[in-house]
Amino acid sequence: MEKRELLYEGKAKKIYRTDNESILWVSYKDDATAFNGEKKAQLEGKARLNNEITSLIFKHLEAEGLETHFVERLSETDQLVRKVDIVPLEVVVRNQVAGSMAKRLGLEEGLKLARPVVEFYYKDDALGDPLITEDHIAILAAATPEEVDQLKLMARKVNEHLQKLFATIDIKLIDFKLEFGRTESGELLLADEISPDTCRLWDMETNERFDKDLFRRNLGNLQAGYQEILTRLGGPTCTK
Amino acid sequence: MEKRELLYEGKAKKIYRTDNESILWVSYKDDATAFNGEKKAQLEGKARLNNEITSLIFKHLEAEGLETHFVERLSETDQLVRKVDIVPLEVVVRNQVAGSMAKRLGLEEGLKLARPVVEFYYKDDALGDPLITEDHIAILAAATPEEVDQLKLMARKVNEHLQKLFATIDIKLIDFKLEFGRTESGELLLADEISPDTCRLWDMETNERFDKDLFRRNLGNLQAGYQEILTRLGGPTCTK
Ligand SMILES: Nc1ncnc2c1ncn2[C@@H]1O[C@H](COP(=O)(O)OP(=O)(O)O)[C@@H](O)[C@H]1O
Ligand SMILES: Nc1ncnc2c1ncn2[C@@H]1O[C@H](COP(=O)(O)OP(=O)(O)O)[C@@H](O)[C@H]1O
Ligand SMILES: [Mg+2]
Ligand SMILES: [Mg+2]
Repeated sequence: MEKRELLYEGKAKKIYRTDNESILWVSYKDDATAFNGEKKAQLEGKARLNNEITSLIFKHLEAEGLETHFVERLSETDQLVRKVDIVPLEVVVRNQVAGSMAKRLGLEEGLKLARPVVEFYYKDDALGDPLITEDHIAILAAATPEEVDQLKLMARKVNEHLQKLFATIDIKLIDFKLEFGRTESGELLLADEISPDTCRLWDMETNERFDKDLFRRNLGNLQAGYQEILTRLGGPTCTK
Repeated sequence: MEKRELLYEGKAKKIYRTDNESILWVSYKDDATAFNGEKKAQLEGKARLNNEITSLIFKHLEAEGLETHFVERLSETDQLVRKVDIVPLEVVVRNQVAGSMAKRLGLEEGLKLARPVVEFYYKDDALGDPLITEDHIAILAAATPEEVDQLKLMARKVNEHLQKLFATIDIKLIDFKLEFGRTESGELLLADEISPDTCRLWDMETNERFDKDLFRRNLGNLQAGYQEILTRLGGPTCTK
């Protein structure tokens, strides 16, 4: 596969065209950002860690029978994915209260939810990715009501698989963010990434954080935390 | 009816016990507040205007067959209501985009919605009355799922009656906030107030504002705007 011109540079990844119209080349970046870009840093090794972890997780989901955009890991920092038309929604699944949900509802972090909760945020940096309701999704024409139902089902299914996967490595999956896209035929497909940048991952026993809260809240070395997840998942340590 | 001790003082009203255990005495205040109490003023005549307007509107809804907490207007600034256990939700109905919805979704004020939208905000000043989803309502145990369905139905019904009422006086009902309470027997009842403090009311032709945005955004004299609504509703002008 040949890497062609840069299509889009996001906060965490660069997306390139390839010689295949329906395949994109994703290059992970070492950039860390939080609070809608207000806090920034370059963290060497982050690109590798997120590319390795997201590749392992998407491969796992594919093996479990879930369809995703993932095609193949190319190198430590790069992968190929199916090109989709991204639905402008961040689909958040929560098993325990943390982060913005704790703040919004005045609840303690760690509180276990009776059942997983799916939330939708409007993917719009200028608006600060606000929480929205299903009526808002319809007003914005971000997705059809049928797609919303499908997104909720798919998100819950991903949650079940991820919870099990992380439980085997003694990690509690507190919450995570998914993005979906539409294929040429209009089918919804799991896209983007699943990494410690997009999940809250706590040690089963100690509640130690191995996710982006290390960076957001200055809780410790981000790369060490992400490497712990990669190692527990059976992935490689740094080859350099 | 005898006015007894002060039970609760809110931002806009004082609530007193009466000699009847199930009836409360509501005294409207001249205080204006906005942005969760950040902006404040004393506006002489506001108590009278909101008490008169909310009394007329609740009487109208009762006449149309809707059950409410309203018992009777006592004086220019006071009224009697049935005591209820307030559901800690602000139920907002929107016919056209304005205010926080315009900001949240990046839409222009005035945009007509294809159908009225009901939103729930968690009534908690310390949290800033955040928008919440139906799942959040369940987590907070603010209302049961059955109550949520009922609240939506009741809010839409109130909207239909209010839209018609305001149309007869050449006013567009852009949006409004309702509060509901539970009676002793657990029945949901429309409570609190319906006034230019809790509605957005625009002139049908000119889009002139006759509501709290006059105060929030320094658009003009609040009392003149509220008096215009009261006058068009056939209510009294100032007797002083
Ligand atoms: N399979 C895909 N096809 C097209 N775009 C994708 C795909 N997967 C992810 N994207 C998009 O790639 C962009 C770059 O990712 P990222 O750097 O995380 O961006 P952001 O700054 O928006 O978080 C995002 O807009 C994301 O939605
Ligand atoms: N029928 C009722 N029974 C009991 N409480 C009520 C009733 N109607 C309204 N209330 C409550 O009276 C309080 C005072 O009103 P207000 O000054 O508007 O308060 P706030 O500052 O919370 O907006 C509010 O908490 C409102 O929910
Ligand atoms: Mg991203
Ligand atoms: Mg009030």
